[in-house]
Amino acid sequence: MAFHLPLGFKFAGVSCGIKKAAGKKDVTMVVGDRPVVAAGVYTQNQVCAAPVLWCRKRTPGDQIRGVVVNSGNANACTGDQGERDTAEMARLAAAEVGCRAEDFLVMSTGIIGVPLPIEKVSQGIQAAAKQLTHSEEGYLAAVDGIMTTDNGRKFASAKYDIGGHSIRIAGMAKGAGMIGPNMATMLSIITTDARLSPHDAQHVLAQAADASFNAISVEGHTSTNDSLVLLASGAAMNKPLAGADLNAFQAALTELCVELAKKIPADGEGATHVMEIRITGAPSDRDAREIARTIADSALVKTAIHGGDPNWGRIVSAAGYSGIPLSIPHLDLKINSHLVFAAGQPTKFDAKVVSQSIKESRDVVLELCVGNGEGRSTFWASDLTVEYVRFNAEYTT
Amino acid sequence: MAFHLPLGFKFAGVSCGIKKAAGKKDVTMVVGDRPVVAAGVYTQNQVCAAPVLWCRKRTPGDQIRGVVVNSGNANACTGDQGERDTAEMARLAAAEVGCRAEDFLVMSTGIIGVPLPIEKVSQGIQAAAKQLTHSEEGYLAAVDGIMTTDNGRKFASAKYDIGGHSIRIAGMAKGAGMIGPNMATMLSIITTDARLSPHDAQHVLAQAADASFNAISVEGHTSTNDSLVLLASGAAMNKPLAGADLNAFQAALTELCVELAKKIPADGEGATHVMEIRITGAPSDRDAREIARTIADSALVKTAIHGGDPNWGRIVSAAGYSGIPLSIPHLDLKINSHLVFAAGQPTKFDAKVVSQSIKESRDVVLELCVGNGEGRSTFWASDLTVEYVRFNAEYTT
Repeated sequence: MAFHLPLGFKFAGVSCGIKKAAGKKDVTMVVGDRPVVAAGVYTQNQVCAAPVLWCRKRTPGDQIRGVVVNSGNANACTGDQGERDTAEMARLAAAEVGCRAEDFLVMSTGIIGVPLPIEKVSQGIQAAAKQLTHSEEGYLAAVDGIMTTDNGRKFASAKYDIGGHSIRIAGMAKGAGMIGPNMATMLSIITTDARLSPHDAQHVLAQAADASFNAISVEGHTSTNDSLVLLASGAAMNKPLAGADLNAFQAALTELCVELAKKIPADGEGATHVMEIRITGAPSDRDAREIARTIADSALVKTAIHGGDPNWGRIVSAAGYSGIPLSIPHLDLKINSHLVFAAGQPTKFDAKVVSQSIKESRDVVLELCVGNGEGRSTFWASDLTVEYVRFNAEYTT
Repeated sequence: MAFHLPLGFKFAGVSCGIKKAAGKKDVTMVVGDRPVVAAGVYTQNQVCAAPVLWCRKRTPGDQIRGVVVNSGNANACTGDQGERDTAEMARLAAAEVGCRAEDFLVMSTGIIGVPLPIEKVSQGIQAAAKQLTHSEEGYLAAVDGIMTTDNGRKFASAKYDIGGHSIRIAGMAKGAGMIGPNMATMLSIITTDARLSPHDAQHVLAQAADASFNAISVEGHTSTNDSLVLLASGAAMNKPLAGADLNAFQAALTELCVELAKKIPADGEGATHVMEIRITGAPSDRDAREIARTIADSALVKTAIHGGDPNWGRIVSAAGYSGIPLSIPHLDLKINSHLVFAAGQPTKFDAKVVSQSIKESRDVVLELCVGNGEGRSTFWASDLTVEYVRFNAEYTT
């Protein structure tokens, strides 16, 4: 599968020893050849990490030069020292590429409440700066540098013709639990060579996030560090996107973000299934998402799917306590296309066939109609397994 | 320990074969010697069972004669047939004691979406009516008749002198998961011989529920059948409670409900710990409860406590996404009286000592100050264990 690397960016990922495992990459840099347009969407947790506070002040913007990331330490709940360390990461990265500290974004992910080993990070940034490259190898090294408990690399890319120009979008992401033992925050960096205004970049990113990274759940615990940034270099030399072209870009960006975001619950700690929860008939899209999220976060639904149990009662009753009005006579539920609850009443189905279908599929599709409204939403979540509990319990701070 | 049985009530519990295990009691009756005052608090799940709809229409009231309960089948998501079956249960019970069907309350708990085996229930009601007794044995049989996945009987009683009269309050409850494989709804029946107006009965019950049954969680899944009723016979012959006497009754009822409610997470499916989450400094009591509930329902907090991990980052960050404003500089967290996070910053503590303290105590006290407000709340929740997941996954509908 061809990889479509956006023009105008260099990438690097190196190991500097924050992570205990020898040689595991833990510093990543993504740097524009010139200043780029940047947009960002961040955690809504009030207890948020120093790098989130730093980035929030700087996006949207059009003078951003790059992002520096460390993994292995979240620099969260670290007080004033944490803020100083974030500023120092930006200063070090900026010094290497020759720009102002204020023009560098910073992300951190890893253990919470422990001061950043800034000496190591400093060496990592210097080493990464020397390896910055436009190549695919550099991109993959950068992907490695942001991972924590992830079992595999999460990245995607696409190329589109928009407004007569070839436009490339590539994204990398990490995350396995929202906060796992190693504080597996969600981070994602999207690069594109499209030319966009900062305002449009922020708008399309927020829209894409709503349909993707805001529509996934491992265990519903919002991290202190979640960050998604979009960097647009303009190297595709298109005229700034507007009208139908901007809409086309929006669609492309959303598609890519959904592809990336779905990889996260699929890699959820101990997960054996991804539930794709499709809600229709809600009063609004936002309401539909709230219903989907309530189902996604129900331990009883998660364990039923893990066990291959077509337990529609758990799904329907979870919808019932979401706080969003339901129309009981319109309630229909399908599990992997099998109708199991119709017009608000139990309906005959072959439980063995549906159970087998759940057990055989890694992706389980739950389709719930909740009324006759226009609101709809699709949400992806992992199931809940014995391995998840072991992984998160058998760890000592 | 003396049991204080309220005057004016008869009790019975019998087996009629709804539950598969031979001889397990599954029909309970609680009947006033005369019409009694009744109040009720019910599930807020929109997908609620037929008996909940029935009771909601009839409380508060002052002509209620009793409650008939079946366990083993929740009569939930059973459509029109479910409503007919609930009315039939009331009719059968009323016929036995000589009152109108409308004056009987009905509760059901057990499997969801399966029509009630009304023939068996009918036989059960006839048998229970014959065994109605004022005795403690009758009370315990009634407790047995409402249980599902509970490991043990949950009941409590107390005697108070209020307004120059001895007043007795007794309560029975059941519930282990909010909806477990056997749909382990929370049901509770409180009887008292105090004389109360229906309006006051409803008010004191709602207040008591807020501090007790609405402040517990096993896995946060609100059941289709949760019901709490208070029956007041007036047999203590006090003049109707008012003013300071009513306040004293309120305090007594709340204390009893808290005692009963705490037994539920303690008996949570697979639970090894009960977390007592005390929030102070919130903008309001309601806000404090929302923060407590968010912490209580975090799978990461639950697994940390199960594993004996003093992982304050999970607790503080759960508070951070509750949606309630926090004052970070005021954030203090104690685990079993050990200060682990102070004034919004990590603080030195001996992780081994705190871990040992969690491992050694069945009850783990988490005290979180979230600001300088007046709002406070105490919440009780079970931890999340491998056994919980096994129990809820390894079951096939």
